Amino acid sequence: MEVDFKNIKVIGFDADDTLWVNETYFRETEERFAELLEDYETKNKIDQELFKIEMKNLETYGYGIKGFMLSMIESALDLSNNQVSQETISKILGLGKKMISHPVELLDGVEEVLSKLEGKYRLIVLTKGDLLDQERKLEKSGLSKYFHHVEVLSDKKESNYQNLLDHLNIDVQEFLMIGNSLKSDVLPILNIGAKAVHVPFHTTWAHEMVSEDELVNNHLKLSRLKDILKYLDN
Amino acid sequence: MEVDFKNIKVIGFDADDTLWVNETYFRETEERFAELLEDYETKNKIDQELFKIEMKNLETYGYGIKGFMLSMIESALDLSNNQVSQETISKILGLGKKMISHPVELLDGVEEVLSKLEGKYRLIVLTKGDLLDQERKLEKSGLSKYFHHVEVLSDKKESNYQNLLDHLNIDVQEFLMIGNSLKSDVLPILNIGAKAVHVPFHTTWAHEMVSEDELVNNHLKLSRLKDILKYLDN
Repeated sequence: MEVDFKNIKVIGFDADDTLWVNETYFRETEERFAELLEDYETKNKIDQELFKIEMKNLETYGYGIKGFMLSMIESALDLSNNQVSQETISKILGLGKKMISHPVELLDGVEEVLSKLEGKYRLIVLTKGDLLDQERKLEKSGLSKYFHHVEVLSDKKESNYQNLLDHLNIDVQEFLMIGNSLKSDVLPILNIGAKAVHVPFHTTWAHEMVSEDELVNNHLKLSRLKDILKYLDN
Repeated sequence: MEVDFKNIKVIGFDADDTLWVNETYFRETEERFAELLEDYETKNKIDQELFKIEMKNLETYGYGIKGFMLSMIESALDLSNNQVSQETISKILGLGKKMISHPVELLDGVEEVLSKLEGKYRLIVLTKGDLLDQERKLEKSGLSKYFHHVEVLSDKKESNYQNLLDHLNIDVQEFLMIGNSLKSDVLPILNIGAKAVHVPFHTTWAHEMVSEDELVNNHLKLSRLKDILKYLDN
């Protein structure tokens, strides 16, 4: 794999499952949610229904925990034919609030990589989801000091990235994106002509899945974030 | 009132209740919410309880319709001692979705003002609330063409504005903010040394209320947005 990073001046880091654990907490909450509704349906059916409702609501709610909470409540009403108890609705609100206040668990090598790249490159957090939630996680993580600023995008499509580079006056040749999602962090970036590094996380949300076949052959895939230091000035 | 706008290069416009109607829909939804719960409490008590729960949750959920929906559900459970029906919870979800999909209603003079200032100044939408929701409203409004881009802040305190000016490389002397909220669009702006214009909207959320006494005497208050054209190049 020959990827040339010599023009890079600005690096965008995805946050969830790139800097810190995220998807794991969604999976754990889905487990609790299925337990709350086990009188009505099987775990498998509950998972399917919740995902279906999340996808139906995605355009309305966007990404993030609050939309997930609202979709859990809607799914609970649907799955139980409006029989779910008020106490269970209350517990679902509690599950969501617990996710929001969860401590931040940094992924391996993050602090080392950021501290070595800082000063050599302009580092930006580039995430979709909820602005307040992401700012809070960055604050709790202790990583704020390494980043120029945080950008939250309503989605991570080509047009979102292109608009962002335009308004920050960043040349596409000078931009590198690092993240765990092929669909959100790699494909759209390659399509606009910037560089991307893929660092997979062990769990991927079904909505973020793409076939590796969709990929053009000019991005770097690393099993550990730390390995990026072999390719960049530090 | 002597305010000098000659150095201004960048103008930030608040969105909700400055460019388009917003607070009115929250008040209307609160009316519907109180009707749904009229078996349990008086309208006055329901309003108070909802506001109390919104304030309690503000740090967790931030601003925007999704947090408001979650607070309505929590209030309904609380006010009814968990007796509220599942159908009512479902209707509350419906009220929120209706708010999100509401058509955008531009305020008087907005299009004229933007079309005249465009090209003379860099115009930015500067709002708190939900990024997706604000992007969608801007899209529906047909006003996107006048704006350089949209910035959604998790809050509108001095530090949020200062960080934003820093990351966009905007000199504080060159920045003017226009909005309907003294608390969010005027006071913090004056405190960091930038300029602000206050264009009140007829309805103000209790959370946004401040006494006029808190104001230093160096901002311009206009009864109609259009009057800003008397003070700026166009």
